[in-house]
Amino acid sequence: MTEQHVYDVVVIGCGPAGLSAAINVKVRNRDVVVLGTEQCSPPLDKAPRIVNYLGFTGVTGVRLREKFVEHARIMGVDIKRARVDAIMPMDDVFMVTSREEVYLGRTVIIATGTPYRPRLGGEQEFLGRGLGYCATCDGPLYRGKDVAIIAHSPEAEVEANFMGEICRKVYYLPLYGPPTALEDTVQVVEGKPTKVLGSKVVNALQVGDTMLKVDGVFIVGAETPPERLFPGIELEDNHIRVNRQQETSVPRVYAAGDCTGPPYQIAKAVGEGLVAGLAAAKLVVALRPRGTSQPA
Amino acid sequence: MTEQHVYDVVVIGCGPAGLSAAINVKVRNRDVVVLGTEQCSPPLDKAPRIVNYLGFTGVTGVRLREKFVEHARIMGVDIKRARVDAIMPMDDVFMVTSREEVYLGRTVIIATGTPYRPRLGGEQEFLGRGLGYCATCDGPLYRGKDVAIIAHSPEAEVEANFMGEICRKVYYLPLYGPPTALEDTVQVVEGKPTKVLGSKVVNALQVGDTMLKVDGVFIVGAETPPERLFPGIELEDNHIRVNRQQETSVPRVYAAGDCTGPPYQIAKAVGEGLVAGLAAAKLVVALRPRGTSQPA
Repeated sequence: MTEQHVYDVVVIGCGPAGLSAAINVKVRNRDVVVLGTEQCSPPLDKAPRIVNYLGFTGVTGVRLREKFVEHARIMGVDIKRARVDAIMPMDDVFMVTSREEVYLGRTVIIATGTPYRPRLGGEQEFLGRGLGYCATCDGPLYRGKDVAIIAHSPEAEVEANFMGEICRKVYYLPLYGPPTALEDTVQVVEGKPTKVLGSKVVNALQVGDTMLKVDGVFIVGAETPPERLFPGIELEDNHIRVNRQQETSVPRVYAAGDCTGPPYQIAKAVGEGLVAGLAAAKLVVALRPRGTSQPA
Repeated sequence: MTEQHVYDVVVIGCGPAGLSAAINVKVRNRDVVVLGTEQCSPPLDKAPRIVNYLGFTGVTGVRLREKFVEHARIMGVDIKRARVDAIMPMDDVFMVTSREEVYLGRTVIIATGTPYRPRLGGEQEFLGRGLGYCATCDGPLYRGKDVAIIAHSPEAEVEANFMGEICRKVYYLPLYGPPTALEDTVQVVEGKPTKVLGSKVVNALQVGDTMLKVDGVFIVGAETPPERLFPGIELEDNHIRVNRQQETSVPRVYAAGDCTGPPYQIAKAVGEGLVAGLAAAKLVVALRPRGTSQPA
C-alpha cells in the first residue's frame, strides 16, 4: 500500500466559502483539495438575481457559481466529488472520510453551508429506532424488510440500488428532481414526506395522504450536520462556533460561510473563506518542520 | 435654520468595506450616505493584479475599484466627498463632522481602512508641541511663523493656502503626487520627511539631507486614526475591536474592513461590510418608533 498524500489544507464544501478559502491557500502556495458535492452551493441555484455581492450587478446565482468554480479552476484548485461523512483527528493529521475515499490534511476548513435541520415529523424521536442517515451502513439490519429512502441528492440513488438488492421493498422519494440511475428493484414515490410513524420503532412513513408501511426510513444526501461531521466541535445556536480568525474549538480546524451562522450571504462566505484560507496556510508553514521543502 | 436630515446609516469610507456596507443597507431599503475621500481606497490603486477576490480573475486594482463604485451608484448609493474628523454621540443620533459639513446618523459604520500609524521620527514625541494633524485648527498659533505641511492627499492644499495667508513661510511636502491648486504663498519642497527635531517644541523638519527650520509641522490628509475619530472606542492591537456582528464597543457604531485588523484583503472587507450593513439596517428598524413610515 502506497503512503497516502497529506494535504496542507482539506476544504469541505465547494460553495463560495470553500472556493474562496481554496484560492487563498493557493495564493500562499500551499496544497489544497476541495471536497464538494455534485452541485456546489445549491442555495445559489435558487437566486434569480444577486445584487449585493460587491462588483457584480444583477447576476444570476447560477452564473455566479459558474464564475466561482471557473476562478478556482484557473487557480489550479482541485475539486473532488465527495460527500464527507466524518472528520477524525489522528496524531498530526485529520482523516476526512467520504463513502469512497479517505483524505488526509494537516488542517481542515469546514464550509458545508447552512446546517441540516430535522424537518420531518418524528425525525428526532425515531433517530436510531428505524430512522437513520446512512442506508448502506445499517443495510444488513433491513434484509428482507421494507424501507423508504428520502433522497436530497442524486447520490442517494446508489444507496437505494444497494438496498434494492437486500430489502423486500424499497420506496424512493426524490426531493431533488427526477432520478436517473435507479434499478427496477426500487420504487419511486412522488410526494412530500411529512411524518415518521411508529410506536417503539418506525412502522410507517406518511407521504401526502398515503401511508407507506415500512420498517426503516433513511434520509440520504442532505448536508451532514457539523456535530455529526466532527463530534464534540463546539456549536452556538446550531452553527459552528468560530472566532474572528475563523478558528473553531478544535485546533487546526477552521469554519467559514453559512455553517458559522447568519447572515447567509455570499459576501460573508467569501470573506470568511479568505480569512480561514490564509490562516490555515499560515499555520501550515508554522507546523512544517524546519528544512522541509514546500510543495510546488 | 432648517432641520437637518438624519440618515439611518452614515458610512465613513468608500473602499470595499464601506461600499459593501452601503449597498446592503440599500438592499434593506434604509437610507444611507457614504462619506469618502477623493480616491476611494488608495491601497487598491497599488494592486497591479488581484487574483483572490472570488469571481474576478486577474483584474487590476483600479478596474476593481471602478466596478465597486459603479455598483454602488447603480444601487443609488450617495457618495459624498468628506474627510471625517470626528464622530460625536448625541442623544439619539451621532454627529459626524468633516471640515465642511456635519452629518447626522442613527447608526455609524466605520470603514476607514488601515489605521494611520506614526511613521515620522519624533512624531509622537512632539505631538501637541508643534506637531499636529489639523493645520487650520491650530493656525492662529502660527501667525507670522514658519510651518511645514506634510500632505498625504490633495485636500491638504486648501489648508496650506490658508496657512499661506497667516504664516511667514509655508513649506509643502506633497506625498501623493504633484499639487495642482497651491497659491504662490506656499513653497513646495521635494523629498521625503524623515524626522521632526526640537528640544521642548519643534524647531525643524529633516527632509533628506536638508533641514527646514520651522515652528510647526502638520501631517494633513492621512486617514484619521480611530481613537481620534471616536475617543474612547475600544481598540485591539491598534485596530477597532469588533465582534462577529461587526459591533464596536460603542452601541450603534459598527466597523468593517482593514480598520478592524488584518488580513488586509478585499474579500474580508466586502464580507465584513455586508455584515455591518445588514446589522445596522436591522437595528434601525428596531430603533424606529412604531407607526413611523420607512424612508423610500
